[in-house]
Amino acid sequence: MARLSPQPQSHAAASPSTLGDQYRRVREDSRRLGEPLSDADATVQSMPDASPAKWHLAHTTWFFETMVLKPNLDGYKPFDERFDYLFNSYYETLGERHPRPRRGMITRPALDTIFDFRAHVDEGIDKLLASDPDPSVAELVELGCHHEQQHQELLLTDILHLFAQNPTKPAYRDPQPLAVEPGEADDARFVSFDGGIVEVGHDGEGFAFDCEGPRHRVLLEPYRLADRLVTNREFIAFIEDGGYCDPLLWLSAGWADILANGWSKPFYWEERDGEYWTMTLRGAQPVDLDAPVTHLSYFEADAFAAWSGKRLPTEFEWENAVQSLPVEGNLADSGRLRPRPAQAGEGLRQMYGDVWEWTRSAFSPYPRFKPAEGAVGEYNGKFMCGQFVLRGGSCATPAGHIRATYRNFFPPDARWQFSGLRLAEDA
Amino acid sequence: MARLSPQPQSHAAASPSTLGDQYRRVREDSRRLGEPLSDADATVQSMPDASPAKWHLAHTTWFFETMVLKPNLDGYKPFDERFDYLFNSYYETLGERHPRPRRGMITRPALDTIFDFRAHVDEGIDKLLASDPDPSVAELVELGCHHEQQHQELLLTDILHLFAQNPTKPAYRDPQPLAVEPGEADDARFVSFDGGIVEVGHDGEGFAFDCEGPRHRVLLEPYRLADRLVTNREFIAFIEDGGYCDPLLWLSAGWADILANGWSKPFYWEERDGEYWTMTLRGAQPVDLDAPVTHLSYFEADAFAAWSGKRLPTEFEWENAVQSLPVEGNLADSGRLRPRPAQAGEGLRQMYGDVWEWTRSAFSPYPRFKPAEGAVGEYNGKFMCGQFVLRGGSCATPAGHIRATYRNFFPPDARWQFSGLRLAEDA
Amino acid sequence: MARLSPQPQSHAAASPSTLGDQYRRVREDSRRLGEPLSDADATVQSMPDASPAKWHLAHTTWFFETMVLKPNLDGYKPFDERFDYLFNSYYETLGERHPRPRRGMITRPALDTIFDFRAHVDEGIDKLLASDPDPSVAELVELGCHHEQQHQELLLTDILHLFAQNPTKPAYRDPQPLAVEPGEADDARFVSFDGGIVEVGHDGEGFAFDCEGPRHRVLLEPYRLADRLVTNREFIAFIEDGGYCDPLLWLSAGWADILANGWSKPFYWEERDGEYWTMTLRGAQPVDLDAPVTHLSYFEADAFAAWSGKRLPTEFEWENAVQSLPVEGNLADSGRLRPRPAQAGEGLRQMYGDVWEWTRSAFSPYPRFKPAEGAVGEYNGKFMCGQFVLRGGSCATPAGHIRATYRNFFPPDARWQFSGLRLAEDA
Amino acid sequence: MARLSPQPQSHAAASPSTLGDQYRRVREDSRRLGEPLSDADATVQSMPDASPAKWHLAHTTWFFETMVLKPNLDGYKPFDERFDYLFNSYYETLGERHPRPRRGMITRPALDTIFDFRAHVDEGIDKLLASDPDPSVAELVELGCHHEQQHQELLLTDILHLFAQNPTKPAYRDPQPLAVEPGEADDARFVSFDGGIVEVGHDGEGFAFDCEGPRHRVLLEPYRLADRLVTNREFIAFIEDGGYCDPLLWLSAGWADILANGWSKPFYWEERDGEYWTMTLRGAQPVDLDAPVTHLSYFEADAFAAWSGKRLPTEFEWENAVQSLPVEGNLADSGRLRPRPAQAGEGLRQMYGDVWEWTRSAFSPYPRFKPAEGAVGEYNGKFMCGQFVLRGGSCATPAGHIRATYRNFFPPDARWQFSGLRLAEDA
Repeated sequence: MARLSPQPQSHAAASPSTLGDQYRRVREDSRRLGEPLSDADATVQSMPDASPAKWHLAHTTWFFETMVLKPNLDGYKPFDERFDYLFNSYYETLGERHPRPRRGMITRPALDTIFDFRAHVDEGIDKLLASDPDPSVAELVELGCHHEQQHQELLLTDILHLFAQNPTKPAYRDPQPLAVEPGEADDARFVSFDGGIVEVGHDGEGFAFDCEGPRHRVLLEPYRLADRLVTNREFIAFIEDGGYCDPLLWLSAGWADILANGWSKPFYWEERDGEYWTMTLRGAQPVDLDAPVTHLSYFEADAFAAWSGKRLPTEFEWENAVQSLPVEGNLADSGRLRPRPAQAGEGLRQMYGDVWEWTRSAFSPYPRFKPAEGAVGEYNGKFMCGQFVLRGGSCATPAGHIRATYRNFFPPDARWQFSGLRLAEDA
Repeated sequence: MARLSPQPQSHAAASPSTLGDQYRRVREDSRRLGEPLSDADATVQSMPDASPAKWHLAHTTWFFETMVLKPNLDGYKPFDERFDYLFNSYYETLGERHPRPRRGMITRPALDTIFDFRAHVDEGIDKLLASDPDPSVAELVELGCHHEQQHQELLLTDILHLFAQNPTKPAYRDPQPLAVEPGEADDARFVSFDGGIVEVGHDGEGFAFDCEGPRHRVLLEPYRLADRLVTNREFIAFIEDGGYCDPLLWLSAGWADILANGWSKPFYWEERDGEYWTMTLRGAQPVDLDAPVTHLSYFEADAFAAWSGKRLPTEFEWENAVQSLPVEGNLADSGRLRPRPAQAGEGLRQMYGDVWEWTRSAFSPYPRFKPAEGAVGEYNGKFMCGQFVLRGGSCATPAGHIRATYRNFFPPDARWQFSGLRLAEDA
Repeated sequence: MARLSPQPQSHAAASPSTLGDQYRRVREDSRRLGEPLSDADATVQSMPDASPAKWHLAHTTWFFETMVLKPNLDGYKPFDERFDYLFNSYYETLGERHPRPRRGMITRPALDTIFDFRAHVDEGIDKLLASDPDPSVAELVELGCHHEQQHQELLLTDILHLFAQNPTKPAYRDPQPLAVEPGEADDARFVSFDGGIVEVGHDGEGFAFDCEGPRHRVLLEPYRLADRLVTNREFIAFIEDGGYCDPLLWLSAGWADILANGWSKPFYWEERDGEYWTMTLRGAQPVDLDAPVTHLSYFEADAFAAWSGKRLPTEFEWENAVQSLPVEGNLADSGRLRPRPAQAGEGLRQMYGDVWEWTRSAFSPYPRFKPAEGAVGEYNGKFMCGQFVLRGGSCATPAGHIRATYRNFFPPDARWQFSGLRLAEDA
Repeated sequence: MARLSPQPQSHAAASPSTLGDQYRRVREDSRRLGEPLSDADATVQSMPDASPAKWHLAHTTWFFETMVLKPNLDGYKPFDERFDYLFNSYYETLGERHPRPRRGMITRPALDTIFDFRAHVDEGIDKLLASDPDPSVAELVELGCHHEQQHQELLLTDILHLFAQNPTKPAYRDPQPLAVEPGEADDARFVSFDGGIVEVGHDGEGFAFDCEGPRHRVLLEPYRLADRLVTNREFIAFIEDGGYCDPLLWLSAGWADILANGWSKPFYWEERDGEYWTMTLRGAQPVDLDAPVTHLSYFEADAFAAWSGKRLPTEFEWENAVQSLPVEGNLADSGRLRPRPAQAGEGLRQMYGDVWEWTRSAFSPYPRFKPAEGAVGEYNGKFMCGQFVLRGGSCATPAGHIRATYRNFFPPDARWQFSGLRLAEDA
């Protein structure tokens, strides 16, 4: 569900020099993400919902070429006219495009050519930023950076999905060891919040996607939120208690998925000699019992909560909590690529940067939300149907891309993202 | 999507004699609905989402037999032990059941036998109510009556769907003529509401389904609501302006439906010699330009609102409106079977009993909503995923079955109900 | 796969009086077949390959009205103009028609109306035959009779399929008891044939469908043919030996069906307390161990033959055998509706009227076969692709409809006909 | 439909030295076919019926490793144990294997590694052949060579299919120019054959696949065969005469394909400014009007023949013709990669090496055909269901791989092979 909701709230655009730094850093991050991949790795599409790495690297570049360079850089010469058709994602106003489920057929251009395309566009953007462009151009470049960061995360989750299809279970990369060796996770504590009328949504400072605003008031009943994520150990208890076999725990659509697809454990899990293993970006690994459970669908998160006698939080309960309390969360560690076990600590732990947390909130427009005009703003709300909001960011989310108001969203059966849960209850 | 959410809020149970009257009236209504049908009409299932009329008539009776008579009436002899398997809908705790998409295979028992089954159960209920049963039994009977009323509406919409498949377009029934001949609908007026903190949800007086409560506070921004429904004439303007051809007006999933299924007008519409006709319970009829448009999916309602520069209301905006103003709406006219054109009038018109109004609210649990225990309460919230709330009731909704807090819900692509829309906007 | 290959070979047309008798007998047979059915039984379509009984009764009548009466009987008034659309099967030259998989949606006209339609057409045919019509008209009437006999068999197999979907397993009819109580079947004997150049195909005497000719020479190698059909007892030995679990016994496409559909025994079989039961026209019954196995796909027949170290015969080996030897087979017992156990006897037993015998011959045109001109001859060879020939006729085949040259054909995965096998081997 | 029917008829095995030459030549041919491909080109699977080039290169090597080296070469060390699972095609007796439709997920091992695997196995085979192995081993090596040649052709047709999915329509290779510039094809002449009893099938001299034998007698009626293939110009006349719109010309299953898939011209054809273009191994090219039409399904070939008032030949008519007359056909020109226009000439032209010719013969076992024992002979006849025989070999068939008795076979809807037709008629 790669989708761009790319309308920045009005805010002072970053100054060109800073912006240039930001641009180069983001682009360099993408390049590094592509490094471990062969041409074949970067080409294959493992399911219609995923895209080839090559496509992510090209599409984000196409965005800068089409939205920024063509209309704004005099004398800019497009790298290859055919890329318009190949690498448009879903912009209806920008013409026909290659069908999404056929993205994996594009064996040519090769990955090297895509890197050449990137360099060509980078040169153009450098030139443009050096020319003191209009603030609206700077805003588009910043938007493009955030757009590219979204695709960086998708590139990782899509490669994980691809490698999981390979019986040899290759590793994408051996990440840094965890700074702290995990001990057994301590019991979750439930933190109380008073509720009442609170403000949520982006306030206009710094970048945000359009669906994060307008900032507005909501009324919350008193509630409690677990201070850490649900662990693999806890989820195994659910499995062993027959959680996947009891229809009373499941939403009707989720139970239908179980019957149709035989779900009996989180995505990527398999049993080897009585132990659970899972596919990771380091290849197949034993499940770390004290790490947060991940690769859950909404259905599984919701069923686990029901089994626990709790519920999922709403997105506003989550957002209010991080606004109210000191929270812990490492947002700058994108090389880690795996969720951290909870460390002993105060406040709310693991709020950012481990796994996306399913909320019970359907992805809906905020009051007075208005879709923007033109191609950039095309389809701001077009995905507001049949999806649930996730909050908090995952270990695959790029550094600097997460904030309290960020609304990720996926259909309730999506499992290939780093998605888990935190329990809540009424106070 | 026939589904029962059958947990009455606590309230003084109706007294047995009144309850007996209610029971007999509801059961007689069902019988009359079945009268125009042949054995074959009542047996065929025209799509997986629809059920045969015979099944509706039997399943509602099975409910009384299984939930009320078997546990509470000494010496009750079930009509036919095999009906447990045949006519259970989805109660997992009540054992195996015949697969929903195969309901149309049950040519035997015949419709006459189903009527015998109904009489047998009616006799049992009479006996039970005469015996001064426990209030909890009375509550179950009342619940069964409301459950049966839900199926009365579905019986009608399912028969309409079946007859629409027949190239000869048979009429189910020639309803009463409309009391007033329609003139051209006057322009819609937008009525303003202040918003603020308001209470919504069922307050415990009289019967309600569990998902209508608990009553709770919500915060509304100021808004305006059209005083009448959108008409066929207005919807034709949308069609003729290319509404079905402009992806920018549509939710992504709705546009995919258009591409996959070739939608270009409301369900049941066809063109004959340049005029629009539609299938109705009176057979094929020319579209009445001043009547409310109906048989729309959520996608079509939402796209029309976008094209109009307006939006759909939330379910709470709708509910607050009927709590704030005198409303017009005839709830006791279940023989009409077609939506009424708007008549000149004050206040909010056509709020009840013409077409179900799509709201932009996903069907979600209210704060502190708790699923009930046991078979009756099984699955209270199991459909709270992927569906949108509709309000107001349609011309096929039985008399006495509609109220301000009633939440109907369907997936966004459902079109075979009497579903239309009313416009809203921010104030 | 109801299909008509309706080109009679040139032959002296039956005289009108005899033909009138034939017509009345065939029509009366159909009427009697419809007698045990309710309106609902006769209306429902249980799968796309099957048709409703009502449709069979109406389509065969439509054939006489369209092909015979309209062009040949002055002043004939069609019963209902809409029936042209409803009851055409696949004649492209005769206009649009109702889509085959939607035949079960036609709840109206009711079964009674179809019987009225039949009477109306019968009257017209009576009148026409009394008027000394052209021989070509008589030929068409004879063709219509054979066409109707094909549909009589399909009506029975389609009703069996429908009733098998009903968990209550209703009986269509209690047939006559078997004349002789079955003992255990004796061992099959293999009868030798010399082969060489032999003639096969219809020789022009009496009625035949076009695909049965032209009569022509074929070259056969010496072969042996079992003198009786394979029994249920023998087939159970195959099951118990793991026949359904060994891919080496199966055609590739058959093995794919096993994997996709979980086939593990003949169609309609189920296990009850360690015993095999099967659905029959008398309702669910224990499998009769000495009766011929039936409701097999080509894949199952072929796998059984491979497991036996034998093979299926070709259609010409079968036809040469019945031309060479006295054969036993009761062709006039259409009320029996179940295959007979083999009786001790000489010659080839059970060649006619028990189960259709799968041959290894693909359904292909005979040398010099030419499709006929016009609507009657439309599509003579259009099914000559992907189907295998069956020979011999079943217990559901009408009396007088079977002959040595008759070629029935079905796709290799079809199982709802009365289809079994006889073993062959090279001599 | 890559499938191996790998049972050599008994014949004197090639002597080791010659065999070594043959082996090296075939292996080198494969290597050269892989040369123009990138790692990504060689990895992607464009449809379930096609395999990645990498897979073809690895699977043919796996065959030698598994069937020849492991059981026969002392001390042979397998290249990578995991390849057994990855590169088995369908040998049930050789264990589990990677599912066919998922072959395109295997981005690793890379193409370079596959070439290393090939070199490793080549070394083993060299060593084995130098050791004067048992004749049965030599037979297996020869079989492996022919098996690899089959996959060489499939590699080309599968790459063509893959490149056709790419909107940029890349060229695989620029082949040699045609030796003779085409003029307009002359009219086809029909050559007469007497028929009678003739012998067909492989006689045991030289290599053949098992399904080509046993040689046996068949009886042919007199017939005539066109002396050249049907051209693109002739096929365009069929299109322009409404051939794709007239159901009377089509087999029932073919017409269903037209309705379902919108076929209106040969596979790979598209219209550009009123001219037909087609995808070729040289990229998109204008259709050469005088070249043989190719990329036809059986349905299209059969419909064209019906429209022409002719028919397709049987496989035995074809085989008898090449046994009876001098034929023209270049079998040693595998670099050409496109069918040749007919040159003026005597005898039967274009019989070999241009396009595979659909025959009306279903792929069936010859009399006394017996599947072989063991893994090599596994499944000899498992594809003898639902397929039609093609004769003659195409421009993608390797030099030396074609002979008069060769039976290729594909399902009637397959279009991605170089498949066309030659007309026949009764004499």
